[in-house]
Amino acid sequence: MDDRELLKVVMGIVGKDRCLDDCAEIPFGELVMVATTDMLHRTTDFVPGMTDWQAGWMSAAVTLSDIASMGAAPKYLLIAVGLDDWKCLEGVMKGAKDCCTKFGAEIIGGDIDRHTELTVVTTGLGLVSRRDIIRRTGAWPGDLVCITGTPGQAQAWLEGYHQFEKKLFEPQPRVQEGQLLGKAGVSAMMDDSDGIALSLYDLMSVNELGFSLEAAKLPLPAGIPEQQARELALYGGGDYELIFTVAPDRFPVPGVSATVIGTVIPEKRVTLDGVPLERRGYQHRWE
Amino acid sequence: MDDRELLKVVMGIVGKDRCLDDCAEIPFGELVMVATTDMLHRTTDFVPGMTDWQAGWMSAAVTLSDIASMGAAPKYLLIAVGLDDWKCLEGVMKGAKDCCTKFGAEIIGGDIDRHTELTVVTTGLGLVSRRDIIRRTGAWPGDLVCITGTPGQAQAWLEGYHQFEKKLFEPQPRVQEGQLLGKAGVSAMMDDSDGIALSLYDLMSVNELGFSLEAAKLPLPAGIPEQQARELALYGGGDYELIFTVAPDRFPVPGVSATVIGTVIPEKRVTLDGVPLERRGYQHRWE
Repeated sequence: MDDRELLKVVMGIVGKDRCLDDCAEIPFGELVMVATTDMLHRTTDFVPGMTDWQAGWMSAAVTLSDIASMGAAPKYLLIAVGLDDWKCLEGVMKGAKDCCTKFGAEIIGGDIDRHTELTVVTTGLGLVSRRDIIRRTGAWPGDLVCITGTPGQAQAWLEGYHQFEKKLFEPQPRVQEGQLLGKAGVSAMMDDSDGIALSLYDLMSVNELGFSLEAAKLPLPAGIPEQQARELALYGGGDYELIFTVAPDRFPVPGVSATVIGTVIPEKRVTLDGVPLERRGYQHRWE
Repeated sequence: MDDRELLKVVMGIVGKDRCLDDCAEIPFGELVMVATTDMLHRTTDFVPGMTDWQAGWMSAAVTLSDIASMGAAPKYLLIAVGLDDWKCLEGVMKGAKDCCTKFGAEIIGGDIDRHTELTVVTTGLGLVSRRDIIRRTGAWPGDLVCITGTPGQAQAWLEGYHQFEKKLFEPQPRVQEGQLLGKAGVSAMMDDSDGIALSLYDLMSVNELGFSLEAAKLPLPAGIPEQQARELALYGGGDYELIFTVAPDRFPVPGVSATVIGTVIPEKRVTLDGVPLERRGYQHRWE
Protein backbone atom coordinates (compact mmCIF):
# COMPACT_ATOMS: atom_id res chain seq x y z
CA MET A 1 0.00 0.00 0.00
CA ASP A 2 1.47 3.39 -0.99
CA ASP A 3 0.24 6.98 -0.70
CA ARG A 4 -1.59 6.89 -4.01
CA GLU A 5 -3.41 3.66 -3.20
CA LEU A 6 -4.40 5.11 0.17
CA LEU A 7 -5.71 8.19 -1.57
CA LYS A 8 -8.27 5.98 -3.28
CA VAL A 9 -9.76 5.18 0.14
CA VAL A 10 -10.20 8.91 0.69
CA MET A 11 -11.67 9.43 -2.78
CA GLY A 12 -14.35 6.89 -1.94
CA ILE A 13 -15.40 8.98 1.06
CA VAL A 14 -15.00 12.62 0.13
CA GLY A 15 -15.33 12.26 -3.66
CA LYS A 16 -12.71 11.90 -6.39
CA ASP A 17 -13.05 15.53 -7.45
CA ARG A 18 -11.73 16.61 -4.06
CA CYS A 19 -8.47 14.73 -4.52
CA LEU A 20 -7.28 15.66 -8.01
CA ASP A 21 -5.32 18.87 -7.57
CA ASP A 22 -2.66 20.40 -5.35
CA CYS A 23 -5.29 22.73 -3.87
CA ALA A 24 -9.04 22.83 -3.34
CA GLU A 25 -10.95 25.71 -4.92
CA ILE A 26 -13.43 28.03 -3.27
CA PRO A 27 -15.42 30.62 -5.26
CA PHE A 28 -14.36 34.08 -4.03
CA GLY A 29 -16.24 36.71 -6.04
CA GLU A 30 -14.35 37.28 -9.28
CA LEU A 31 -11.46 35.29 -7.85
CA VAL A 32 -10.88 31.73 -6.75
CA MET A 33 -9.50 31.02 -3.31
CA VAL A 34 -7.26 27.95 -3.31
CA ALA A 35 -6.68 25.98 -0.10
CA THR A 36 -4.22 23.24 0.78
CA THR A 37 -2.84 21.52 3.89
CA ASP A 38 0.41 19.60 4.52
CA MET A 39 1.69 17.60 7.48
CA LEU A 40 5.44 17.36 8.10
CA HIS A 41 7.24 15.85 11.07
CA ARG A 42 10.64 15.16 12.48
CA THR A 43 11.22 11.49 11.68
CA THR A 44 10.08 11.67 8.06
CA ASP A 45 10.54 15.20 6.82
CA PHE A 46 12.94 17.18 8.98
CA VAL A 47 16.41 15.88 8.16
CA PRO A 48 18.89 15.54 11.07
CA GLY A 49 20.91 18.75 11.14
CA MET A 50 18.03 21.02 10.19
CA THR A 51 17.49 23.92 12.56
CA ASP A 52 14.08 24.73 14.02
CA TRP A 53 14.02 27.79 11.76
CA GLN A 54 14.58 25.57 8.72
CA ALA A 55 11.83 23.15 9.85
CA GLY A 56 9.44 26.10 10.04
CA TRP A 57 10.62 27.48 6.70
CA MET A 58 10.21 24.11 4.98
CA SER A 59 6.73 23.63 6.47
CA ALA A 60 5.54 26.92 5.02
CA ALA A 61 7.40 26.41 1.73
CA VAL A 62 5.75 23.09 0.83
CA THR A 63 2.31 24.63 1.24
CA LEU A 64 3.18 27.81 -0.66
CA SER A 65 4.48 25.56 -3.45
CA ASP A 66 1.08 23.86 -3.75
CA ILE A 67 -0.51 27.30 -4.06
CA ALA A 68 2.07 28.37 -6.64
CA SER A 69 1.32 25.25 -8.69
CA MET A 70 -2.25 26.49 -9.20
CA GLY A 71 -1.00 29.83 -10.51
CA ALA A 72 -2.24 31.52 -7.35
CA ALA A 73 -0.72 34.12 -5.04
CA PRO A 74 -0.27 32.83 -1.46
CA LYS A 75 -2.07 35.09 1.02
CA TYR A 76 -2.69 33.37 4.34
CA LEU A 77 -1.16 30.56 6.37
CA LEU A 78 -2.47 28.72 9.43
CA ILE A 79 0.06 26.65 11.33
CA ALA A 80 -0.49 23.87 13.89
CA VAL A 81 2.65 22.90 15.77
CA GLY A 82 2.97 19.71 17.83
CA LEU A 83 5.98 19.96 20.12
CA ASP A 84 8.01 17.51 22.17
CA ASP A 85 10.15 20.44 23.36
CA TRP A 86 8.54 23.85 23.73
CA LYS A 87 11.88 25.51 23.06
CA CYS A 88 11.54 24.60 19.37
CA LEU A 89 8.47 26.79 18.98
CA GLU A 90 10.15 30.15 18.52
CA GLY A 91 12.48 28.91 15.76
CA VAL A 92 9.73 27.06 13.92
CA MET A 93 7.41 30.07 14.00
CA LYS A 94 10.14 32.46 12.88
CA GLY A 95 11.11 30.19 9.98
CA ALA A 96 7.49 29.87 8.86
CA LYS A 97 6.96 33.60 9.18
CA ASP A 98 10.11 34.49 7.23
CA CYS A 99 9.10 32.14 4.41
CA CYS A 100 5.60 33.64 4.31
CA THR A 101 6.96 37.17 4.34
CA LYS A 102 9.34 36.43 1.46
CA PHE A 103 6.53 35.06 -0.69
CA GLY A 104 3.78 37.54 0.14
CA ALA A 105 1.74 35.56 2.67
CA GLU A 106 1.04 36.11 6.35
CA ILE A 107 0.40 33.82 9.28
CA ILE A 108 -3.15 34.42 10.46
CA GLY A 109 -3.74 31.64 12.96
CA GLY A 110 -2.58 28.41 14.48
CA ASP A 111 -2.62 25.86 17.25
CA ILE A 112 0.00 24.55 19.68
CA ASP A 113 -0.08 20.98 20.92
CA ARG A 114 2.15 18.73 22.95
CA HIS A 115 3.34 15.83 20.81
CA THR A 116 5.80 12.93 20.82
CA GLU A 117 7.81 14.57 18.04
CA LEU A 118 7.91 17.90 16.25
CA THR A 119 4.92 17.89 13.87
CA VAL A 120 3.94 20.90 11.80
CA VAL A 121 0.77 21.20 9.75
CA THR A 122 0.47 24.24 7.53
CA THR A 123 -2.71 25.23 5.75
CA GLY A 124 -2.35 27.80 3.01
CA LEU A 125 -4.90 29.99 1.29
CA GLY A 126 -4.20 31.81 -1.96
CA LEU A 127 -6.03 33.86 -4.54
CA VAL A 128 -6.08 33.74 -8.31
CA SER A 129 -8.35 35.16 -10.99
CA ARG A 130 -10.70 32.61 -12.54
CA ARG A 131 -9.09 32.83 -15.95
CA ASP A 132 -5.53 32.35 -14.67
CA ILE A 133 -6.03 29.28 -12.47
CA ILE A 134 -4.06 26.23 -13.64
CA ARG A 135 -5.02 22.68 -12.75
CA ARG A 136 -3.49 19.26 -13.27
CA THR A 137 -6.03 18.65 -16.03
CA GLY A 138 -5.88 20.53 -19.32
CA ALA A 139 -2.76 19.17 -21.03
CA TRP A 140 -3.08 18.74 -24.81
CA PRO A 141 -1.21 16.49 -27.26
CA GLY A 142 1.59 18.46 -28.86
CA ASP A 143 2.10 20.65 -25.78
CA LEU A 144 5.62 20.99 -24.47
CA VAL A 145 6.46 19.40 -21.09
CA CYS A 146 8.60 21.81 -19.08
CA ILE A 147 10.15 22.15 -15.65
CA THR A 148 11.47 25.15 -13.75
CA GLY A 149 14.95 25.12 -12.22
CA THR A 150 17.13 22.03 -11.82
CA PRO A 151 15.41 19.00 -10.29
CA GLY A 152 17.23 16.37 -8.22
CA GLN A 153 19.30 18.64 -6.02
CA ALA A 154 17.42 18.03 -2.78
CA GLN A 155 17.72 14.27 -3.21
CA ALA A 156 21.41 14.73 -4.13
CA TRP A 157 22.05 16.08 -0.62
CA LEU A 158 20.54 12.91 0.82
CA GLU A 159 23.00 10.91 -1.29
CA GLY A 160 26.00 12.79 0.04
CA TYR A 161 26.33 15.85 -2.19
CA HIS A 162 26.29 18.33 0.63
CA GLN A 163 26.75 21.36 -1.60
CA PHE A 164 22.98 21.13 -2.15
CA GLU A 165 22.05 21.53 1.53
CA LYS A 166 20.06 24.72 0.98
CA LYS A 167 17.95 23.08 -1.73
CA LEU A 168 16.74 20.43 0.72
CA PHE A 169 16.73 22.45 3.95
CA GLU A 170 15.34 25.73 2.64
CA PRO A 171 13.24 25.00 -0.44
CA GLN A 172 12.20 28.04 -2.44
CA PRO A 173 8.65 27.61 -3.74
CA ARG A 174 8.20 28.92 -7.29
CA VAL A 175 5.62 31.47 -6.26
CA GLN A 176 6.41 34.19 -8.77
CA GLU A 177 6.92 31.70 -11.59
CA GLY A 178 3.59 30.00 -10.83
CA GLN A 179 1.68 33.24 -11.23
CA LEU A 180 3.51 34.19 -14.43
CA LEU A 181 2.81 30.74 -15.87
CA GLY A 182 -0.85 31.05 -14.92
CA LYS A 183 -1.16 34.43 -16.63
CA ALA A 184 0.65 33.03 -19.69
CA GLY A 185 -2.00 30.31 -19.99
CA VAL A 186 0.01 27.11 -19.56
CA SER A 187 -2.29 24.12 -19.93
CA ALA A 188 -1.59 21.98 -16.81
CA MET A 189 0.71 22.30 -13.81
CA MET A 190 1.75 20.71 -10.52
CA ASP A 191 4.83 20.74 -8.33
CA ASP A 192 7.32 17.89 -8.52
CA SER A 193 7.76 17.26 -4.80
CA ASP A 194 7.69 13.47 -5.28
CA GLY A 195 9.95 13.55 -8.37
CA ILE A 196 9.40 14.10 -12.09
CA ALA A 197 8.40 10.51 -12.85
CA LEU A 198 5.64 10.26 -10.24
CA SER A 199 4.43 13.76 -11.12
CA LEU A 200 4.00 12.79 -14.76
CA TYR A 201 2.16 9.60 -13.80
CA ASP A 202 -0.07 11.76 -11.59
CA LEU A 203 -0.73 14.10 -14.51
CA MET A 204 -1.43 11.12 -16.77
CA SER A 205 -3.96 9.75 -14.29
CA VAL A 206 -6.17 12.82 -14.76
CA ASN A 207 -5.47 13.55 -18.44
CA GLU A 208 -6.31 11.14 -21.26
CA LEU A 209 -2.82 11.34 -22.73
CA GLY A 210 0.86 10.65 -21.99
CA PHE A 211 4.32 12.16 -22.00
CA SER A 212 7.44 11.53 -24.04
CA LEU A 213 10.65 12.78 -22.39
CA GLU A 214 14.10 13.15 -23.91
CA ALA A 215 16.94 12.29 -21.55
CA ALA A 216 19.34 14.74 -23.20
CA LYS A 217 17.03 17.65 -22.40
CA LEU A 218 16.80 17.03 -18.64
CA PRO A 219 18.55 19.73 -16.64
CA LEU A 220 20.84 17.89 -14.20
CA PRO A 221 22.43 18.83 -10.89
CA ALA A 222 26.05 19.81 -11.46
CA GLY A 223 29.09 17.89 -10.23
CA ILE A 224 27.42 14.47 -10.20
CA PRO A 225 28.07 11.56 -12.64
CA GLU A 226 25.51 11.83 -15.44
CA GLN A 227 23.67 8.58 -14.84
CA GLN A 228 23.25 9.26 -11.12
CA ALA A 229 22.26 12.86 -11.81
CA ARG A 230 19.55 11.70 -14.22
CA GLU A 231 18.29 9.19 -11.65
CA LEU A 232 18.09 11.98 -9.05
CA ALA A 233 16.27 14.32 -11.42
CA LEU A 234 13.67 11.74 -12.43
CA TYR A 235 12.99 9.96 -9.17
CA GLY A 236 14.27 12.18 -6.35
CA GLY A 237 11.96 13.83 -3.83
CA GLY A 238 12.18 17.11 -1.95
CA ASP A 239 12.22 19.44 -4.94
CA TYR A 240 9.62 22.13 -5.30
CA GLU A 241 9.96 22.91 -8.97
CA LEU A 242 6.92 23.34 -11.21
CA ILE A 243 6.19 20.84 -13.95
CA PHE A 244 3.86 22.21 -16.60
CA THR A 245 2.57 21.64 -20.10
CA VAL A 246 2.20 24.52 -22.51
CA ALA A 247 1.31 25.11 -26.17
CA PRO A 248 4.56 25.57 -28.13
CA ASP A 249 3.64 29.10 -29.24
CA ARG A 250 3.30 30.24 -25.62
CA PHE A 251 6.79 29.20 -24.60
CA PRO A 252 9.12 30.57 -23.31
CA VAL A 253 7.27 32.64 -20.72
CA PRO A 254 9.03 35.95 -19.95
CA GLY A 255 10.42 35.99 -16.41
CA VAL A 256 10.32 32.21 -15.97
CA SER A 257 13.46 30.13 -16.26
CA ALA A 258 12.27 26.71 -17.42
CA THR A 259 13.47 23.87 -19.62
CA VAL A 260 11.56 21.85 -22.23
CA ILE A 261 12.04 18.17 -21.33
CA GLY A 262 9.53 16.49 -23.63
CA THR A 263 6.14 16.62 -25.30
CA VAL A 264 2.57 15.59 -24.57
CA ILE A 265 1.56 12.56 -26.65
CA PRO A 266 -1.91 11.16 -27.38
CA GLU A 267 -0.99 7.68 -26.09
CA LYS A 268 -1.46 7.07 -22.37
CA ARG A 269 2.12 6.25 -21.41
CA VAL A 270 5.22 7.95 -20.01
CA THR A 271 8.46 7.30 -21.88
CA LEU A 272 12.10 8.43 -21.72
CA ASP A 273 13.79 8.24 -25.13
CA GLY A 274 10.96 5.97 -26.21
CA VAL A 275 11.33 3.51 -23.32
CA PRO A 276 8.63 3.32 -20.60
CA LEU A 277 9.67 5.37 -17.57
CA GLU A 278 9.51 3.60 -14.22
CA ARG A 279 6.63 4.68 -12.02
CA ARG A 280 8.54 5.36 -8.83
CA GLY A 281 9.63 8.27 -6.66
CA TYR A 282 9.11 9.58 -3.17
CA GLN A 283 6.24 7.80 -1.43
CA HIS A 284 5.45 6.63 2.08
CA ARG A 285 5.12 2.86 2.39
CA TRP A 286 2.27 1.34 4.42
CA GLU A 287 2.37 -2.20 5.77
CA MET B 1 5.18 26.87 31.21
CA ASP B 2 1.57 26.32 30.11
CA ASP B 3 -0.30 26.82 26.82
CA ARG B 4 -1.11 30.43 27.53
CA GLU B 5 2.48 31.33 28.40
CA LEU B 6 3.66 29.61 25.24
CA LEU B 7 1.13 31.60 23.25
CA LYS B 8 3.02 34.75 24.28
CA VAL B 9 6.07 33.45 22.38
CA VAL B 10 3.89 33.18 19.29
CA MET B 11 2.39 36.62 19.84
CA GLY B 12 5.89 38.08 19.78
CA ILE B 13 6.45 36.62 16.32
CA VAL B 14 3.15 36.81 14.45
CA GLY B 15 1.59 39.71 16.36
CA LYS B 16 -0.80 39.78 19.32
CA ASP B 17 -3.80 40.57 17.11
CA ARG B 18 -3.40 37.21 15.39
CA CYS B 19 -3.82 35.30 18.65
CA LEU B 20 -6.85 36.83 20.32
CA ASP B 21 -9.82 34.98 18.88
CA ASP B 22 -10.98 31.45 18.13
CA CYS B 23 -10.64 32.17 14.41
CA ALA B 24 -8.70 34.46 12.12
CA GLU B 25 -10.70 36.78 9.87
CA ILE B 26 -10.33 37.26 6.12
CA PRO B 27 -12.31 39.94 4.22
CA PHE B 28 -14.62 38.18 1.78
CA GLY B 29 -16.69 40.79 -0.04
CA GLU B 30 -19.70 41.64 2.13
CA LEU B 31 -18.85 38.69 4.33
CA VAL B 32 -15.99 37.70 6.58
CA MET B 33 -14.31 34.32 6.13
CA VAL B 34 -13.18 32.90 9.45
CA ALA B 35 -10.35 30.35 9.58
CA THR B 36 -9.07 28.10 12.35
CA THR B 37 -6.85 25.04 12.77
CA ASP B 38 -6.66 22.38 15.50
CA MET B 39 -4.26 19.51 16.15
CA LEU B 40 -5.51 16.41 17.98
CA HIS B 41 -3.70 13.14 18.52
CA ARG B 42 -4.05 9.76 20.11
CA THR B 43 -2.12 10.09 23.38
CA THR B 44 -3.64 13.42 24.41
CA ASP B 45 -7.02 13.77 22.77
CA PHE B 46 -8.40 10.45 21.60
CA VAL B 47 -9.50 8.62 24.72
CA PRO B 48 -8.88 4.83 24.85
CA GLY B 49 -12.08 3.19 23.66
CA MET B 50 -12.86 5.78 21.01
CA THR B 51 -13.42 4.37 17.55
CA ASP B 52 -11.65 5.73 14.49
CA TRP B 53 -14.98 7.19 13.40
CA GLN B 54 -15.25 9.04 16.73
CA ALA B 55 -11.67 10.33 16.43
CA GLY B 56 -12.57 11.75 13.03
CA TRP B 57 -15.85 13.17 14.31
CA MET B 58 -14.15 14.84 17.27
CA SER B 59 -11.42 16.31 15.05
CA ALA B 60 -13.98 18.00 12.85
CA ALA B 61 -16.21 19.00 15.77
CA VAL B 62 -13.56 20.98 17.66
CA THR B 63 -12.84 23.06 14.59
CA LEU B 64 -16.51 23.60 13.75
CA SER B 65 -16.96 24.74 17.36
CA ASP B 66 -14.33 27.47 16.89
CA ILE B 67 -16.21 28.64 13.80
CA ALA B 68 -19.52 28.56 15.67
CA SER B 69 -18.04 30.68 18.45
CA MET B 70 -17.53 33.53 15.96
CA GLY B 71 -21.21 33.38 14.92
CA ALA B 72 -20.16 31.96 11.54
CA ALA B 73 -21.51 29.13 9.40
CA PRO B 74 -18.93 26.38 8.80
CA LYS B 75 -18.40 25.80 5.08
CA TYR B 76 -15.13 24.01 4.34
CA LEU B 77 -12.78 21.65 6.11
CA LEU B 78 -9.24 20.52 5.24
CA ILE B 79 -7.94 17.51 7.10
CA ALA B 80 -4.36 16.27 7.50
CA VAL B 81 -4.14 12.76 8.93
CA GLY B 82 -0.93 11.25 10.32
CA LEU B 83 -1.29 7.49 10.63
CA ASP B 84 0.61 4.74 12.40
CA ASP B 85 -1.85 2.23 10.91
CA TRP B 86 -3.37 2.93 7.52
CA LYS B 87 -6.45 0.93 8.42
CA CYS B 88 -7.57 3.82 10.66
CA LEU B 89 -7.92 6.16 7.71
CA GLU B 90 -11.32 5.11 6.47
CA GLY B 91 -12.98 5.44 9.88
CA VAL B 92 -11.35 8.78 10.63
CA MET B 93 -12.37 10.23 7.28
CA LYS B 94 -15.94 8.94 7.58
CA GLY B 95 -16.29 10.40 11.07
CA ALA B 96 -14.98 13.77 9.95
CA LYS B 97 -17.21 13.72 6.89
CA ASP B 98 -20.33 12.79 8.88
CA CYS B 99 -19.68 15.61 11.35
CA CYS B 100 -19.18 18.10 8.51
CA THR B 101 -22.31 16.93 6.75
CA LYS B 102 -24.40 17.27 9.91
CA PHE B 103 -23.25 20.86 10.44
CA GLY B 104 -23.33 22.12 6.86
CA ALA B 105 -19.63 21.90 5.94
CA GLU B 106 -17.77 19.80 3.40
CA ILE B 107 -14.29 18.34 3.25
CA ILE B 108 -12.44 20.01 0.38
CA GLY B 109 -8.87 18.84 0.82
CA GLY B 110 -6.30 17.12 2.94
CA ASP B 111 -3.03 15.32 3.36
CA ILE B 112 -2.03 11.84 4.48
CA ASP B 113 1.22 11.21 6.33
CA ARG B 114 2.88 8.31 8.09
CA HIS B 115 3.26 9.11 11.79
CA THR B 116 4.18 7.51 15.09
CA GLU B 117 0.61 7.94 16.35
CA LEU B 118 -2.75 8.93 14.95
CA THR B 119 -2.61 12.72 14.53
CA VAL B 120 -5.39 14.72 12.93
CA VAL B 121 -5.23 18.39 12.06
CA THR B 122 -8.42 19.99 10.84
CA THR B 123 -8.57 23.46 9.35
CA GLY B 124 -12.01 24.99 9.07
CA LEU B 125 -13.31 27.90 7.03
CA GLY B 126 -16.62 29.58 7.72
CA LEU B 127 -18.60 32.57 6.56
CA VAL B 128 -20.49 35.25 8.47
CA SER B 129 -21.83 38.67 7.58
CA ARG B 130 -19.72 41.55 8.87
CA ARG B 131 -22.43 42.79 11.21
CA ASP B 132 -23.06 39.38 12.80
CA ILE B 133 -19.49 38.35 13.61
CA ILE B 134 -18.83 37.91 17.33
CA ARG B 135 -15.38 38.15 18.89
CA ARG B 136 -13.95 37.62 22.35
CA THR B 137 -13.79 41.37 22.79
CA GLY B 138 -16.92 43.49 23.16
CA ALA B 139 -18.32 42.53 26.57
CA TRP B 140 -19.86 45.40 28.52
CA PRO B 141 -20.41 45.91 32.26
CA GLY B 142 -23.96 44.93 33.13
CA ASP B 143 -24.13 42.30 30.37
CA LEU B 144 -25.31 38.85 31.33
CA VAL B 145 -22.80 35.97 31.27
CA CYS B 146 -24.44 32.91 29.71
CA ILE B 147 -23.60 29.40 28.62
CA THR B 148 -25.32 26.97 26.30
CA GLY B 149 -26.11 23.41 27.41
CA THR B 150 -24.71 21.72 30.49
CA PRO B 151 -20.94 22.05 30.98
CA GLY B 152 -18.83 19.43 32.78
CA GLN B 153 -20.26 16.30 31.20
CA ALA B 154 -17.23 15.42 29.08
CA GLN B 155 -14.92 15.69 32.08
CA ALA B 156 -17.43 13.68 34.12
CA TRP B 157 -16.86 10.70 31.82
CA LEU B 158 -13.13 10.94 32.53
CA GLU B 159 -13.95 10.77 36.24
CA GLY B 160 -15.97 7.58 35.86
CA TYR B 161 -19.48 8.75 34.98
CA HIS B 162 -19.75 6.69 31.85
CA GLN B 163 -23.30 7.75 31.06
CA PHE B 164 -21.69 10.84 29.51
CA GLU B 165 -19.63 8.92 26.97
CA LYS B 166 -21.27 10.57 23.97
CA LYS B 167 -20.52 14.05 25.31
CA LEU B 168 -16.79 13.33 25.34
CA PHE B 169 -16.54 10.99 22.36
CA GLU B 170 -18.92 12.73 19.97
CA PRO B 171 -19.04 16.41 20.87
CA GLN B 172 -21.78 18.40 19.18
CA PRO B 173 -20.53 21.87 18.23
CA ARG B 174 -23.10 24.62 18.81
CA VAL B 175 -23.18 25.59 15.17
CA GLN B 176 -26.82 26.65 14.91
CA GLU B 177 -26.75 28.39 18.29
CA GLY B 178 -23.60 30.33 17.36
CA GLN B 179 -25.22 31.79 14.29
CA LEU B 180 -28.45 32.67 16.13
CA LEU B 181 -26.42 34.35 18.88
CA GLY B 182 -24.43 36.28 16.27
CA LYS B 183 -27.60 37.52 14.58
CA ALA B 184 -29.04 38.45 17.99
CA GLY B 185 -26.03 40.67 18.66
CA VAL B 186 -24.48 39.12 21.75
CA SER B 187 -21.46 41.17 22.81
CA ALA B 188 -18.64 38.60 23.16
CA MET B 189 -18.34 34.84 22.69
CA MET B 190 -15.96 31.87 22.75
CA ASP B 191 -16.25 28.15 23.27
CA ASP B 192 -15.48 26.66 26.67
CA SER B 193 -13.25 23.78 25.53
CA ASP B 194 -10.79 24.34 28.40
CA GLY B 195 -13.52 24.88 31.02
CA ILE B 196 -15.62 27.85 32.16
CA ALA B 197 -13.01 29.28 34.52
CA LEU B 198 -10.17 29.45 31.98
CA SER B 199 -12.56 30.74 29.33
CA LEU B 200 -13.60 33.63 31.54
CA TYR B 201 -9.98 34.46 32.34
CA ASP B 202 -9.29 34.37 28.59
CA LEU B 203 -12.20 36.77 28.02
CA MET B 204 -10.96 39.01 30.85
CA SER B 205 -7.49 39.15 29.26
CA VAL B 206 -8.91 40.90 26.19
CA ASN B 207 -11.70 42.93 27.83
CA GLU B 208 -11.08 45.62 30.46
CA LEU B 209 -13.62 44.14 32.85
CA GLY B 210 -14.45 41.06 34.89
CA PHE B 211 -17.12 38.49 35.65
CA SER B 212 -19.20 37.72 38.70
CA LEU B 213 -20.69 34.23 38.72
CA GLU B 214 -23.37 32.78 40.99
CA ALA B 215 -22.83 29.15 41.95
CA ALA B 216 -26.54 28.47 42.28
CA LYS B 217 -27.13 29.40 38.65
CA LEU B 218 -24.60 26.99 37.14
CA PRO B 219 -26.27 24.19 35.18
CA LEU B 220 -24.75 20.96 36.51
CA PRO B 221 -24.39 17.45 35.07
CA ALA B 222 -27.09 15.21 36.54
CA GLY B 223 -26.47 12.28 38.89
CA ILE B 224 -23.24 13.63 40.41
CA PRO B 225 -22.76 15.00 43.96
CA GLU B 226 -23.25 18.77 43.79
CA GLN B 227 -19.77 19.84 44.82
CA GLN B 228 -18.09 17.52 42.33
CA ALA B 229 -20.56 18.51 39.62
CA ARG B 230 -19.74 22.20 40.17
CA GLU B 231 -16.01 21.42 40.02
CA LEU B 232 -16.54 19.62 36.70
CA ALA B 233 -18.62 22.47 35.27
CA LEU B 234 -16.11 25.16 36.20
CA TYR B 235 -12.80 23.46 35.51
CA GLY B 236 -13.48 20.46 33.26
CA GLY B 237 -12.27 20.27 29.66
CA GLY B 238 -13.71 18.64 26.57
CA ASP B 239 -16.96 20.58 26.42
CA TYR B 240 -17.86 22.54 23.35
CA GLU B 241 -20.51 24.82 24.76
CA LEU B 242 -20.59 28.53 23.94
CA ILE B 243 -19.92 31.11 26.65
CA PHE B 244 -21.21 34.53 25.74
CA THR B 245 -22.05 37.92 27.17
CA VAL B 246 -25.20 39.73 26.13
CA ALA B 247 -27.12 42.90 27.01
CA PRO B 248 -30.01 41.93 29.36
CA ASP B 249 -32.67 43.19 26.93
CA ARG B 250 -31.43 40.85 24.20
CA PHE B 251 -31.77 37.69 26.27
CA PRO B 252 -33.14 35.06 25.91
CA VAL B 253 -32.40 34.46 22.24
CA PRO B 254 -35.16 32.48 20.47
CA GLY B 255 -33.97 29.01 19.47
CA VAL B 256 -31.00 28.98 21.83
CA SER B 257 -31.12 27.04 25.08
CA ALA B 258 -28.76 28.88 27.41
CA THR B 259 -28.44 29.70 31.10
CA VAL B 260 -27.48 32.97 32.77
CA ILE B 261 -24.62 32.21 35.18
CA GLY B 262 -23.47 35.70 36.14
CA THR B 263 -22.88 39.27 35.06
CA VAL B 264 -20.11 41.36 33.59
CA ILE B 265 -18.58 43.72 36.19
CA PRO B 266 -16.35 46.77 35.70
CA GLU B 267 -13.62 45.37 37.98
CA LYS B 268 -11.02 43.14 36.36
CA ARG B 269 -11.59 39.95 38.35
CA VAL B 270 -13.49 36.69 38.11
CA THR B 271 -15.52 35.69 41.17
CA LEU B 272 -17.91 32.93 42.21
CA ASP B 273 -20.38 34.10 44.88
CA GLY B 274 -18.00 37.00 45.50
CA VAL B 275 -14.90 34.84 46.03
CA PRO B 276 -12.08 34.88 43.43
CA LEU B 277 -12.41 31.92 41.07
CA GLU B 278 -9.31 29.79 40.61
CA ARG B 279 -7.60 30.26 37.28
CA ARG B 280 -7.29 26.65 36.23
CA GLY B 281 -8.71 24.18 33.73
CA TYR B 282 -7.57 22.06 30.86
CA GLN B 283 -4.04 23.00 29.73
CA HIS B 284 -1.01 21.17 28.46
CA ARG B 285 2.03 21.42 30.76
CA TRP B 286 5.48 22.11 29.33
CA GLU B 287 8.68 21.29 31.21
